[in-house]
Amino acid sequence: MSAPGTDAGLLAPTWAGSPAEAEVTDEAVLRAMAEVEAALARTQASLGLLPERAARAITEAVRDHRLDLVALARAARAAANPVVAFVPAFTAIVSDVDSAAAEYVHRGSTSQDILDSACMLISRRVLGLISADLERVAHAMAALAAEHRLTVQAGRTLAQHAVPITFGLKAAGWLQLVLDALERVRAVALPAQLGGAAGTLAAYGEYAALDGQGAGAIDLVAPFAAELGLAEPVLPWHAARTPLADLAAVLSFVTGALGKFALDVQTLSRTEIAEVAEPAAPGRGASSAMPQKRNPVLATLIITAARQVPAHALVLTQSMLAEDERAPGAWHAEWQPWREALRLTGGAAHLAAELASGLRVYPERMRANVRLTQGELVSERLNVALAPVLGRAAAKKLLGEVSREAAVTGKPMAEVLLGRAELTGALSAGRMAVLLDPAGYVGEASALVDRVLDRAKSVLS
Amino acid sequence: MSAPGTDAGLLAPTWAGSPAEAEVTDEAVLRAMAEVEAALARTQASLGLLPERAARAITEAVRDHRLDLVALARAARAAANPVVAFVPAFTAIVSDVDSAAAEYVHRGSTSQDILDSACMLISRRVLGLISADLERVAHAMAALAAEHRLTVQAGRTLAQHAVPITFGLKAAGWLQLVLDALERVRAVALPAQLGGAAGTLAAYGEYAALDGQGAGAIDLVAPFAAELGLAEPVLPWHAARTPLADLAAVLSFVTGALGKFALDVQTLSRTEIAEVAEPAAPGRGASSAMPQKRNPVLATLIITAARQVPAHALVLTQSMLAEDERAPGAWHAEWQPWREALRLTGGAAHLAAELASGLRVYPERMRANVRLTQGELVSERLNVALAPVLGRAAAKKLLGEVSREAAVTGKPMAEVLLGRAELTGALSAGRMAVLLDPAGYVGEASALVDRVLDRAKSVLS
Amino acid sequence: MSAPGTDAGLLAPTWAGSPAEAEVTDEAVLRAMAEVEAALARTQASLGLLPERAARAITEAVRDHRLDLVALARAARAAANPVVAFVPAFTAIVSDVDSAAAEYVHRGSTSQDILDSACMLISRRVLGLISADLERVAHAMAALAAEHRLTVQAGRTLAQHAVPITFGLKAAGWLQLVLDALERVRAVALPAQLGGAAGTLAAYGEYAALDGQGAGAIDLVAPFAAELGLAEPVLPWHAARTPLADLAAVLSFVTGALGKFALDVQTLSRTEIAEVAEPAAPGRGASSAMPQKRNPVLATLIITAARQVPAHALVLTQSMLAEDERAPGAWHAEWQPWREALRLTGGAAHLAAELASGLRVYPERMRANVRLTQGELVSERLNVALAPVLGRAAAKKLLGEVSREAAVTGKPMAEVLLGRAELTGALSAGRMAVLLDPAGYVGEASALVDRVLDRAKSVLS
Amino acid sequence: MSAPGTDAGLLAPTWAGSPAEAEVTDEAVLRAMAEVEAALARTQASLGLLPERAARAITEAVRDHRLDLVALARAARAAANPVVAFVPAFTAIVSDVDSAAAEYVHRGSTSQDILDSACMLISRRVLGLISADLERVAHAMAALAAEHRLTVQAGRTLAQHAVPITFGLKAAGWLQLVLDALERVRAVALPAQLGGAAGTLAAYGEYAALDGQGAGAIDLVAPFAAELGLAEPVLPWHAARTPLADLAAVLSFVTGALGKFALDVQTLSRTEIAEVAEPAAPGRGASSAMPQKRNPVLATLIITAARQVPAHALVLTQSMLAEDERAPGAWHAEWQPWREALRLTGGAAHLAAELASGLRVYPERMRANVRLTQGELVSERLNVALAPVLGRAAAKKLLGEVSREAAVTGKPMAEVLLGRAELTGALSAGRMAVLLDPAGYVGEASALVDRVLDRAKSVLS
Repeated sequence: MSAPGTDAGLLAPTWAGSPAEAEVTDEAVLRAMAEVEAALARTQASLGLLPERAARAITEAVRDHRLDLVALARAARAAANPVVAFVPAFTAIVSDVDSAAAEYVHRGSTSQDILDSACMLISRRVLGLISADLERVAHAMAALAAEHRLTVQAGRTLAQHAVPITFGLKAAGWLQLVLDALERVRAVALPAQLGGAAGTLAAYGEYAALDGQGAGAIDLVAPFAAELGLAEPVLPWHAARTPLADLAAVLSFVTGALGKFALDVQTLSRTEIAEVAEPAAPGRGASSAMPQKRNPVLATLIITAARQVPAHALVLTQSMLAEDERAPGAWHAEWQPWREALRLTGGAAHLAAELASGLRVYPERMRANVRLTQGELVSERLNVALAPVLGRAAAKKLLGEVSREAAVTGKPMAEVLLGRAELTGALSAGRMAVLLDPAGYVGEASALVDRVLDRAKSVLS
Repeated sequence: MSAPGTDAGLLAPTWAGSPAEAEVTDEAVLRAMAEVEAALARTQASLGLLPERAARAITEAVRDHRLDLVALARAARAAANPVVAFVPAFTAIVSDVDSAAAEYVHRGSTSQDILDSACMLISRRVLGLISADLERVAHAMAALAAEHRLTVQAGRTLAQHAVPITFGLKAAGWLQLVLDALERVRAVALPAQLGGAAGTLAAYGEYAALDGQGAGAIDLVAPFAAELGLAEPVLPWHAARTPLADLAAVLSFVTGALGKFALDVQTLSRTEIAEVAEPAAPGRGASSAMPQKRNPVLATLIITAARQVPAHALVLTQSMLAEDERAPGAWHAEWQPWREALRLTGGAAHLAAELASGLRVYPERMRANVRLTQGELVSERLNVALAPVLGRAAAKKLLGEVSREAAVTGKPMAEVLLGRAELTGALSAGRMAVLLDPAGYVGEASALVDRVLDRAKSVLS
Repeated sequence: MSAPGTDAGLLAPTWAGSPAEAEVTDEAVLRAMAEVEAALARTQASLGLLPERAARAITEAVRDHRLDLVALARAARAAANPVVAFVPAFTAIVSDVDSAAAEYVHRGSTSQDILDSACMLISRRVLGLISADLERVAHAMAALAAEHRLTVQAGRTLAQHAVPITFGLKAAGWLQLVLDALERVRAVALPAQLGGAAGTLAAYGEYAALDGQGAGAIDLVAPFAAELGLAEPVLPWHAARTPLADLAAVLSFVTGALGKFALDVQTLSRTEIAEVAEPAAPGRGASSAMPQKRNPVLATLIITAARQVPAHALVLTQSMLAEDERAPGAWHAEWQPWREALRLTGGAAHLAAELASGLRVYPERMRANVRLTQGELVSERLNVALAPVLGRAAAKKLLGEVSREAAVTGKPMAEVLLGRAELTGALSAGRMAVLLDPAGYVGEASALVDRVLDRAKSVLS
Repeated sequence: MSAPGTDAGLLAPTWAGSPAEAEVTDEAVLRAMAEVEAALARTQASLGLLPERAARAITEAVRDHRLDLVALARAARAAANPVVAFVPAFTAIVSDVDSAAAEYVHRGSTSQDILDSACMLISRRVLGLISADLERVAHAMAALAAEHRLTVQAGRTLAQHAVPITFGLKAAGWLQLVLDALERVRAVALPAQLGGAAGTLAAYGEYAALDGQGAGAIDLVAPFAAELGLAEPVLPWHAARTPLADLAAVLSFVTGALGKFALDVQTLSRTEIAEVAEPAAPGRGASSAMPQKRNPVLATLIITAARQVPAHALVLTQSMLAEDERAPGAWHAEWQPWREALRLTGGAAHLAAELASGLRVYPERMRANVRLTQGELVSERLNVALAPVLGRAAAKKLLGEVSREAAVTGKPMAEVLLGRAELTGALSAGRMAVLLDPAGYVGEASALVDRVLDRAKSVLS
């Protein structure tokens, strides 16, 4: 094999080319590790534990791009993590900037401090992107909910028409989930990692003592976290993986929430239903063989993420089951699932913003579908109305029969109903017409839309 | 097949006989469904939508135990959910109490309102149990952390001795996770479900109109939730499964947190390590063949839960991907995983309380294990100390060699070190002894213990 | 808590009341454990290692039903498995039959030998049921494939009409998967477990030596397996979990295969598509609120299984990661997922047999849907036909435009096409009609149906 | 963002730099897609359906490396798959070779035919690598089993010493799993995919008809598969995902089997146990902070794979649940999990070959650990021996007491036993010594080793 070979997302169109992708490539991970080393050095310098000049040199080295990704990736096998080979390679760069500074790189540190902190740094950046995209999604959905609060649509349960809803209510349901997702993304705590070899910070302290400074190792924690813009941990979390478990749950939730939206779009854009369509764009939704195709690709790619992220989240959650002070396997199994979950979610949120903002809605088609079963959609209402007349059980039985007769004969339900002897004199044709109007049986749809819009205003403001 | 056959936890010793089990049996589910019907009736009565007397009769019927579980379980196949068969069976009981009340059972309601609300009701009860048990666990761990803040123990990473820690710090790490778990359990929102057939509340409203009352269907939501002691939902959540996704994440987290503790107990109680042991009890840890066996069964059963719950959580999370107003399959796939995750977690928390409170700790054995490698455990410290003398790279190289020589020859590291020419005059034997004392190299262990104990005080107060 | 509470499948309508359920209840597990003890005794007796009379007494005790399930379930907590408490309880029953036989129960054995063998015994029975049901499914699908080999239907990709297929081909695709499933079910090896405390069979041998017999412990393995109708293991598999990993994969596969079928049924039975319907039965598919509802409940319950079983399979597969000679947690985590996967699959296969045999097919509706897009369905064909006339790229471009124009204007594609200047003289109206006939563009559908029917004949014979 | 950023395995040391990696990079996927297009062209040419010269040109174009990976990866978003953009890019290259050939690229084909076939092609290559590595693993384990058939070791169950085994038997258990894995890898069927837009092969036939040839589209299937060295499918499998479900199960199995081995190595190499060690290599197992560390990195990386692959397999298995003729989401969710599972398994097998061949075994340490509990390890044997003397229950009770007394007092079990009045005269000191010798209580270990070695001979020959 001559060329090393790399991945650029060919098999992951959900995230290829998305803003999230750029933040989590291998190069970005290397850069983040360098940033963590620099933040550590600056923190130590600020406490007098190493020369300011060394911290400046280390910080400067971050911008250097000479690290050989492929070589480092392969070297990672020897130590089972990428930090052990990264440290001397980065130190060599620091040395080029200022040879005296080399001695101060990774001072007192351990692989996991660097990698965990880098991972949190990257997570913060991608969660920022996701958050912004979810806000765009939420705004678009709020607009749909408001605009279509009265647009009658068939409510569907177990794949069958059930009772009428409004499309505004459906959009409000999507919005509700997205607001839930947004709140969870905003709430997740991303702490820096600083613990040393087994979480006691001993080597940091040993160097501090060596340097004769009064500052204890524990004094590093808060300013180090602040330097990185991360939360301060109560305790090092080498084997107490709350941050990754929380992150996993949130990413799973986000793709689940967006997946529900995408799945509805896919269903509603089926050829036979055709109530919504994806926003058109040149080449979008094309097939390699069928010229007419306009596939719901945005929805498809979002669902693709929603089918994968929970599995990555599972691995991350299971990594809580970590023995000792650093688990041989549990920790190492986190890295790829963490990265892939992050960029799948980032990609999905980005696509969802496009899908929600550009969604085409066909109210006329919704109306046509509502009329399709010629009355069945309001059977529940008839049931309520006829119960006092016929008794509850008899009413339900009658309506079941009427509905079957309508299905078999193709006659409208109203006609079949009016032909039933039991109902003679019980309901006028006028009252029947009122009862059979789907638009009159959307319950609290409008009030419910308002409840969600109110919440959206508060969450998005 | 003559007898129907049932399950009572024979294959689930983690929860069999636990307080959680009793809250989630099939019988408990039936009872909770009845309680939800009764709460709905009382709420409707309080708004004048049905006679107080009917609500009382329905409430009274909850205490009746004549529902035939096996028959209802089998009848559930026809409608793919247990509510459709439950309603007439429960109505018959109501009718026995007060025949006029029968008309008012399940008024305006739909299967999912009943089952989802029952599920939240049960979840609240089991989370209450879990919460109390986690508090017991946390108190016990806090005591361990305080008592053993100075008990030196080998820190282990990648299954090898790394640097010294204290057992108090290890216990503090467990405690930190349990506090995280407790906060998550307390925070999870459990809303009532009230939406009717497709989330518009239309039938509730239709009955309200029929009864000529001013109250709208939406007015039912808050008092209904209050009646059940559940949160008020912004929107019906038939196909927006935030509550179950959140619950799934929390249950997974709890078993992960307890699983970390249990895994450490298991490791530390290995025959060769023997630093802790499970609390003894008659018959506990017995083998069917080996008389000497005292297996770490509490830890084993906790881990058993931690290996299963994330898989149940996965199914629940994936059920967010629910099409339409009620998903054919996604909803139905939630029930068993929800129940099993709930009772596995409840059982695990209950066992963990017993394990944490009764854990036997052997500090002497910890000290013996610390001495096992005769100095290697403080190599990191020597590295720091020798770096100024020899240069950083040379120090690390020397210590690697010394460590290998000590391993091969069986000599203590101090002896090998003192024999190395490079170190002649560099370190006195006295200084060496100080450097080689594991108890002197536990870094910030004590301060870190205090940080967690402070947090525990605030969380547990 | 007074009453213990039990489960009878209230939350699992997929399997409640199914033949599979009866084979895997807690009672069935107890019975199977007793059967294994009896088989072991008979095997030992056949080798002269214990008195024939004792073996007969132990065998007779299997039929006794006095074991207290709830008490045993709770006692299982002490040893973390149900066998330790079962052995003395079963021994007491044996003692009642023949007090001298009591000494010979569980002779040389260990918990895992009994439980693993019982688990394989039950698995064999349920796989037998599944196999028979899959055969019924396959026969029904073969009939559908044959009958509808020429019934034109819209092929759908990415939720959009693509090109024509036949319903026979779709049924052949389902059949293909079911045959795959059937072959995998038939092929799975279910070995007995016999190894003693750590897989050496030492205690069996010790008793044999005690009894002064020439037979070695290893001579027990083959006849013991034969006695149970199970495969002979090469090695005890206490911590080498091939049988359960294989079983997990197969059960997952079966529900996946049936789930594909069910998902298609669900889609095709959507109100707007209505090409198939589930077999009707009294009460089936009823809603608690909507009288008209005939929900696709069989398909829903099958899908419900397909959403859960892979998660159980995951836990079983992960249990391969089992340390030592018996893993503390990995083994114990298998039991509930094993049982639930088994009965979900058994239930799903049983429902699928009913669904496939009774499926209602509406060819007329298929034809109507095929005509829905007025020509788009054969765009691919037009593309091939026009490529030589216009060049390939130009043809695809033209057809894209024509398709969009047809969609916007609602005109049939033929009409739009004939209006295009590029095509003047290129295609006659007659040729166009031929090209636009969906029935003429089903490719090798019929030949492919034959290939699968041939395979079915061979697999099912 | 200027540079696109790529991945090279920095976070996946299990596979970075492994032979498997090279076969599954994005570049390798592009190359395989080109190979599939070329095989299709050659097959069509062989049936007279396109000019030989065109097939040659297309074949030649495969070797061209001008495809722009990053551009294609990003373009894949528009169509939700990488083939739609690949076809014109590849056609352009073909056109450069022979402009007349361009017309014949992807003739009659569809995206999924190309991508699925490419995926199978790559799978075959990686399974070949895995197979070879598993054979190396098996040979090494067979050697260990043979060499150490009599090396006594503590059998461990539930993390406690149980009864003696031999290290040869433990190795035989690993070998058994690896042979199982090997057989499953060899058996997995990898069929080509050829179906056209919806599995009817219609467009292939349409072109064939256009070209006036007698060959039908179905005649392409067998020679196309043969051209690629893949199995011939009975039916196109666009939405019948047997091949990927099977592959997923096998990859999961392989990592589970290797993971069991690695987990045992990790446990046995714990500082306190130290019965085995990983093969040393320069830099291997190093820590960034602790000079003495020789972490079990090979085992760690293998376990890392075993923790991830089942989750990928889950996604692949769930993709069986694929609606219609091509599922919007289920198909697309397969690609990354497929690739990652393949290379994780490939990497793990490669590492396992190194670990198994170089494993260091310390029989002396095994003996020391066996003596650690001074007799407890043979309690089971004493139980058997004392049962006839004291009665079974009394013997077990006595041994439990003796074992506890030995543990508390630190006295050897023999001494405690000989001091018990019940045993006076019952057992001579000589007989006691025999009974207490762990080497005498390894049961059928040797015979069992032979059974596995026999199997290995047959599987590996």
